[in-house]
Amino acid sequence: MVKRPAALNMADLAERAGVSIATVSRALSGSPGVSQETRQRIKELADDLSYAVSPDAARLARGSTGRIAVVTPDVAHWFYAAMLSGIVTALHGTDLDVLLYEVKDEPQRRRFFEDLPARRQVDALILVALPISDDERRRLDLMGVTVVMAGGTLGEHPHVRIDDVAAGRQAATHLVRAGHQRIAMINSSGTWSLEYAAPSARQRGFTEALEAGGIEVHPDLVIHHQWGSHGGVKGMSELLSLPEPPTAVVTFSDEVAFGALRTLRRAGVSVPYAMSVIGIDDHHLADMFDLTTVHQPVAQQGIEAGRLAQQILEQGEVASPHITLPTHLVARGTSGPPPPGPGVRAGLPLNDHGVG
Amino acid sequence: MVKRPAALNMADLAERAGVSIATVSRALSGSPGVSQETRQRIKELADDLSYAVSPDAARLARGSTGRIAVVTPDVAHWFYAAMLSGIVTALHGTDLDVLLYEVKDEPQRRRFFEDLPARRQVDALILVALPISDDERRRLDLMGVTVVMAGGTLGEHPHVRIDDVAAGRQAATHLVRAGHQRIAMINSSGTWSLEYAAPSARQRGFTEALEAGGIEVHPDLVIHHQWGSHGGVKGMSELLSLPEPPTAVVTFSDEVAFGALRTLRRAGVSVPYAMSVIGIDDHHLADMFDLTTVHQPVAQQGIEAGRLAQQILEQGEVASPHITLPTHLVARGTSGPPPPGPGVRAGLPLNDHGVG
Repeated sequence: MVKRPAALNMADLAERAGVSIATVSRALSGSPGVSQETRQRIKELADDLSYAVSPDAARLARGSTGRIAVVTPDVAHWFYAAMLSGIVTALHGTDLDVLLYEVKDEPQRRRFFEDLPARRQVDALILVALPISDDERRRLDLMGVTVVMAGGTLGEHPHVRIDDVAAGRQAATHLVRAGHQRIAMINSSGTWSLEYAAPSARQRGFTEALEAGGIEVHPDLVIHHQWGSHGGVKGMSELLSLPEPPTAVVTFSDEVAFGALRTLRRAGVSVPYAMSVIGIDDHHLADMFDLTTVHQPVAQQGIEAGRLAQQILEQGEVASPHITLPTHLVARGTSGPPPPGPGVRAGLPLNDHGVG
Repeated sequence: MVKRPAALNMADLAERAGVSIATVSRALSGSPGVSQETRQRIKELADDLSYAVSPDAARLARGSTGRIAVVTPDVAHWFYAAMLSGIVTALHGTDLDVLLYEVKDEPQRRRFFEDLPARRQVDALILVALPISDDERRRLDLMGVTVVMAGGTLGEHPHVRIDDVAAGRQAATHLVRAGHQRIAMINSSGTWSLEYAAPSARQRGFTEALEAGGIEVHPDLVIHHQWGSHGGVKGMSELLSLPEPPTAVVTFSDEVAFGALRTLRRAGVSVPYAMSVIGIDDHHLADMFDLTTVHQPVAQQGIEAGRLAQQILEQGEVASPHITLPTHLVARGTSGPPPPGPGVRAGLPLNDHGVG
């Protein structure tokens, strides 16, 4: 295995090229706003620098391998799997193959980026909602590998994402308009030291919607649990333990909502008569839970990310490297007006959680 | 693009090598029971034959690329995604990378196998529950590419699977032992012209369990719908339309069960008091539906398949190339004894579908 390259950074490259760091970033990421001549000069300089460090990296920077690496935190999880499926769909019929890397935790992520110059032979990297460090970003820039972020942002690099603030706002607004006054949020707690932007953005939208409706945000009604259905199971149990539980809940994701619904079912709390629940995602099974939710186009984000990568490899750049896809409300059976009385405390009868 | 190779078959190879077709198959698939000398001779002969047809295929047969292709019918579906995740996990820390191919329908499958010799550079192929034709099998054999089937069988080739007859039997036996007499099955209808073995195998197990319990299999209680939750929605509607509906239902998969449960909830049929439902899979969300099911180790099948491929590439063969992993009952809240009276026809009150 080739020795791991010494750390280099974009500032060195900017200094040598006599341009700003932002220009270097744009040039290497294929973003517009850089002249063809400058782009070429910076790329050649990056190649030279890389060459001094690793012949493999230089080959990566110059040659075409016909392969794109997709890096995902979890192959089995529906969200990442749907993104991956979109990417594969976009590249179908092109000459590009997909190399798949799963990076489950920080040590695996570090190892992946350490091994990349020595071993991986790819023209581009699509990160599927994978936060990376500044140092890792600089390494990718210097290798001259096109990097696209699907389901998030990564500095100046091309990305495809949703507006998470808007998604949180749409979910909470639906409950505000239905007349709820005590609205909770079961948000996701981070598991990485590098933060995902989605939880704080969705919470911002939630807060904005309540404030716009003149509704107070109670700090004890905004709680954090681990992402996934079991986080929802625990979160709803916590909310039901409050002296004054909410009458409506926004969850970080549909899977959190599925768990919340199971707790409500087991607790005999009628949905939506005593408690409304709304998710964010429109998971492919949301309909089986009759879950009201905010739809985000997951596979479509993958498709757009695959297209961006392919176009940059083919044409050197794209006109619009930063794509935000819209989200929208999907009203199903788990949301309705607040109960006439005090909600859960009224001991409404056990009932079906999702009337059709 | 290199011209597509002319069709060759294993019989030609067997004739030239002076051995049986079964020996050729075993030699090329890395199965035991073939002397090292014979294996070598057949591989060389296969290489020569391939060489005459396609230089790329010959390079594939001789050189090592450090890559394994995983071919799956649906990247986004949890079952295939979990298998893929297992394969990736098994290859983590090895020198092998994963190239991912999605093959959604017959034209895509045909194109994949046509392009394979010209374009794909892999040491091995892992098929994730993907049925292929005899002609495609022969092509792979002649290319000298190691082929492993995950989630099914493929002639003499190494495979990892579950016993689908046993899974169907375990599901139905649970309902027989609970005292049910009118037991239905919502089975999966095929969508490929090449048949998956699972639906007929699970139905065989279902039938065996009923017969062992002295219970008649009513032909109108065994119905077929498309695989997935919407198949379950329709299937349960069909069963509820019968003059005499069942008191218990085995579904082909958990997703079919999720759909069946939604129909029951909307129809106001109490689960498990008026109707028991059992799935097969133990889907990662089965617990959120309180679904009783038969667990199959999906990711583990992927892990074992990845290990088989890796060991065959490293050692030339494996001692046990045919692995069947066990399944077992997971009792949750959707199954119980039959209703005292005539079941659905008794108009039992609306109730929660899955008491905890």
